[in-house]
Amino acid sequence: MTKIKIKDLPTRAPEGLNKEEIKDKREKLAFEIGELGMKMQAEKNKSLLVVLQGMDSSGKDGVSRKVFRYCAPSWTNAHAFGKPTDLEFAHDFLWRVHPHAPAKGNISIFIRSHYEDVLIQRVHKWITPKRVTARFNAINAWEKLLAEDNNTIVLKFFLNLSHEKQGIKLQERIDDPERNWKHKDGDWEQRKYWNQYMKAYEDVLNRSEIPWINVPADQRWYRDYFVANEVHKALKKMRPKYPILKVKPDFKA
Amino acid sequence: MTKIKIKDLPTRAPEGLNKEEIKDKREKLAFEIGELGMKMQAEKNKSLLVVLQGMDSSGKDGVSRKVFRYCAPSWTNAHAFGKPTDLEFAHDFLWRVHPHAPAKGNISIFIRSHYEDVLIQRVHKWITPKRVTARFNAINAWEKLLAEDNNTIVLKFFLNLSHEKQGIKLQERIDDPERNWKHKDGDWEQRKYWNQYMKAYEDVLNRSEIPWINVPADQRWYRDYFVANEVHKALKKMRPKYPILKVKPDFKA
Repeated sequence: MTKIKIKDLPTRAPEGLNKEEIKDKREKLAFEIGELGMKMQAEKNKSLLVVLQGMDSSGKDGVSRKVFRYCAPSWTNAHAFGKPTDLEFAHDFLWRVHPHAPAKGNISIFIRSHYEDVLIQRVHKWITPKRVTARFNAINAWEKLLAEDNNTIVLKFFLNLSHEKQGIKLQERIDDPERNWKHKDGDWEQRKYWNQYMKAYEDVLNRSEIPWINVPADQRWYRDYFVANEVHKALKKMRPKYPILKVKPDFKA
Repeated sequence: MTKIKIKDLPTRAPEGLNKEEIKDKREKLAFEIGELGMKMQAEKNKSLLVVLQGMDSSGKDGVSRKVFRYCAPSWTNAHAFGKPTDLEFAHDFLWRVHPHAPAKGNISIFIRSHYEDVLIQRVHKWITPKRVTARFNAINAWEKLLAEDNNTIVLKFFLNLSHEKQGIKLQERIDDPERNWKHKDGDWEQRKYWNQYMKAYEDVLNRSEIPWINVPADQRWYRDYFVANEVHKALKKMRPKYPILKVKPDFKA
């Protein structure tokens, strides 16, 4: 198998696309995702786990807002995984993640995920290479468990943002008052480790059994459309159908 | 204080409204709810708990889907409270509810709620009147705790559906293949206790310290608009603002 190299993966839309057309398409796809999701919910047979990973400002929140707009919050939940709490650190790294796996019929969205434990922890050398390998094995086994034991489709998106574009977006957070709240000094700190992060991400892309989907993330409009299109394809492939009553019950209103 | 009587509360829109206009208004309100919610999220100071209660088919799911469409799933979570599990029954009735209270900056939507424990349980006389009173006291104390200790605005909606309209909607679930999946024999069973439910709901409306909002729920289009309008008002009253950086940090991209 050829090794995936991040520098070969696109961060931008192909030339010649019309931004407004793509936005319209995305909205249509999002609406259909809502319809298909409702059928999956009705069937309560399969479920969908969407993992969003990417560098700071790559748009994990934005994607989750635009793509799942028409999915009911009662069966669509997102969970953002931040720095582990003391209690979480006192457990294995999958302990805090497992409770958020989707129930049959539901969609779970992970904003960051269990992959942080082989990314930031690795970049800063908080864990040994031996532990990294053990964690990749654990991750592959766990994702397989979800897929095999609970009919979960696992869709993993790498929001691929260029180094240059990240600089622009982080600066926007300082310059634009409406984005000030998103600024964190720590993001600039992590940016210094860009090359180490890319190396760690490359390993994530290569060592995962369930494949990753590369999302060109430099342009918001294309990024959101791209993810919507992949989610739509995956849901369609499930062919969810509203279950029909075999015998019509006869009640008196 | 005059006692609230359910028979005096409207189940239908006022005459003369234009359905399509109201739908457009609702969509605009929903969009603004998304914007206001984002600001609340940015401030991380206040939070919003939305409680949806009503008889079967009154539209709790529908409301949550239409009103919170533009709120990001990372800070908007809904939880549907069904029949308690064995573990939940082994605890006090607020034990399973408390973990789902909204964190600062977030919106939580309860589809059914802790009020079921003074509704269905009461209608079927599974609890004594003394326990009912104790539970109302506990509910009032708990909602006060959320409001006072975590700046939570508690919005409670009674989706007021007429007996006649419920009959029509439950029958639709049998007749329309796309709605078959929503049919449960048990809903027809509970319908037999309509009068007892109304009595129990009336008590809920009268014994809650944080007041309920009556939602005319016979027409979907008006119901969704009505709730959107109330949520919009509540968020606007919070006057959430994006926090501004006092000192612009100077980083090198």
